[in-house]
Amino acid sequence: MSVLIVGSTALDSIKTPKAENPRLLGGSASHAAVAASFFGPVNLVGVVGDDFPQRYIRLYERHGIDLEGLQVLPGKTFHWSGEYELNMNNRRTLKTELGVFETFTPTLPAAYQTTPFVLLANIAPALQHHVLDQMRRPRFVVADTMDLWLKVALQDLLKLVKRLDGFVLNDSEAQQLTGEDNVFRALKKIHRLGPRYVVIKQGSHGSILSGPHGLFLCPAYPLRQVVDPTGAGDSFVGGMMGYLAATKGPIDRHIRRAMTYGSVVASFCCEGFGLQRTTRVTRAQIDRRVKELERLTRF
Amino acid sequence: MSVLIVGSTALDSIKTPKAENPRLLGGSASHAAVAASFFGPVNLVGVVGDDFPQRYIRLYERHGIDLEGLQVLPGKTFHWSGEYELNMNNRRTLKTELGVFETFTPTLPAAYQTTPFVLLANIAPALQHHVLDQMRRPRFVVADTMDLWLKVALQDLLKLVKRLDGFVLNDSEAQQLTGEDNVFRALKKIHRLGPRYVVIKQGSHGSILSGPHGLFLCPAYPLRQVVDPTGAGDSFVGGMMGYLAATKGPIDRHIRRAMTYGSVVASFCCEGFGLQRTTRVTRAQIDRRVKELERLTRF
Repeated sequence: MSVLIVGSTALDSIKTPKAENPRLLGGSASHAAVAASFFGPVNLVGVVGDDFPQRYIRLYERHGIDLEGLQVLPGKTFHWSGEYELNMNNRRTLKTELGVFETFTPTLPAAYQTTPFVLLANIAPALQHHVLDQMRRPRFVVADTMDLWLKVALQDLLKLVKRLDGFVLNDSEAQQLTGEDNVFRALKKIHRLGPRYVVIKQGSHGSILSGPHGLFLCPAYPLRQVVDPTGAGDSFVGGMMGYLAATKGPIDRHIRRAMTYGSVVASFCCEGFGLQRTTRVTRAQIDRRVKELERLTRF
Repeated sequence: MSVLIVGSTALDSIKTPKAENPRLLGGSASHAAVAASFFGPVNLVGVVGDDFPQRYIRLYERHGIDLEGLQVLPGKTFHWSGEYELNMNNRRTLKTELGVFETFTPTLPAAYQTTPFVLLANIAPALQHHVLDQMRRPRFVVADTMDLWLKVALQDLLKLVKRLDGFVLNDSEAQQLTGEDNVFRALKKIHRLGPRYVVIKQGSHGSILSGPHGLFLCPAYPLRQVVDPTGAGDSFVGGMMGYLAATKGPIDRHIRRAMTYGSVVASFCCEGFGLQRTTRVTRAQIDRRVKELERLTRF
């Protein structure tokens, strides 16, 4: 089955202590869509300006990503610049130029409205609502978010969370949202906001699922070298949704393995700038790391 | 088989935002010995003053811990006071009174010198050396340490590490020792110092083993409430060594499960002040949490 992914489609200029990379393909939807594309068909909803490099369009196409929902508007593509500190955990935003994103209204092509799996990747909650309003009885809807929306659009976000099957956020966002520094107490509080599945991402420490069948402690793949963690969280949730959409049977039977697949795609994402490493990976390489994670956690 | 445990035997006065508990039984050897005692016989090597409460002697005895190696000397027992902040991660030492510990020389009873498993729990590296000097061909020697010794006794510690089969330390100590903020690169560097097995503890994120058969990502048991994390690391390594000593066959076949048992004992330790919760736990409760961890990590 297909997965519909809406989010930001952007150009990222990323500085780390070791290198500087201007105008890479980035944005939550780009990372999530490429990650999901390893498992099955993806419908992408986003907006870019007329400065958007043709080679990035070809990159989406090479991954079999359907672009009927990608609007190309006169103006500039959303451009984010950021800088990482030496330990790769602290990120500082240098510049955010919204460009065509400022007035973006995601309108779904008719063919997209019945996509069974929906990933509302990180983007303003009002836009996530707007996409969901256009869907006809989706089977499984998951949203990701970021700290910014907890600050400037909390009411929108809380309303959205009620409409979700699954909600994904990172540990500091979970603490910000619930006031709980204990991740397991935070999970409990987030369930009360609506979703049956809650996933808290913990970066290099993996992630935790709380669902109808209890908890799952999902490992992160051990990386000796992190080149650029931008998009790792989007790759995680994209890989997870792509895998779920490609798998028959109940969500509960597959969600743990789906998260592990997401975790592995995220590990590849961290090994290169932007999407440089992810776009060179094969499904066989992904499968190998998932098998390795199985061996690394068995006791 | 037996495990010999040397380390500190202390009185701990622990303050948290919610409570204050004076003169609890504490010290690295006390926590490790109680943790190991769930699995088999333990020989304890340590020193206490003549102010050491008789009820703590009885507590050791109830756990079947052999006390021939516990010296009782005229003077005061080592007394540590510390305070935890609200999130239980930051600890501040308020007072350290060494007492009889100041001049402690661990002399092993003859019967202890052939103990096959040796745990050099956190204590000055010179004392760890001294204990090891008295051992006759132990089968498996593991040491734990703390940041203090990396600062004030690094050369002693590096010499000790050469003599070990296994070395256990936490993530910030590993970074301090190797200058590596990546835990997997740190593991590699620590192997070069000597030990075949290196375990890096990551608190509530679990621990990582690097051994002859590669890595193992050991989960932490999910706790909704941490009452007092003092001694959790000692409980972890004590439980691990106790389980290993009680198990037939090669170390490699059992060390992953041993770590998981250590992790579970540490989880109980965190649920009460000092040893209050650990000393009320049964082997059956420990087994149940290990089984639960198996379910929580399977995918």
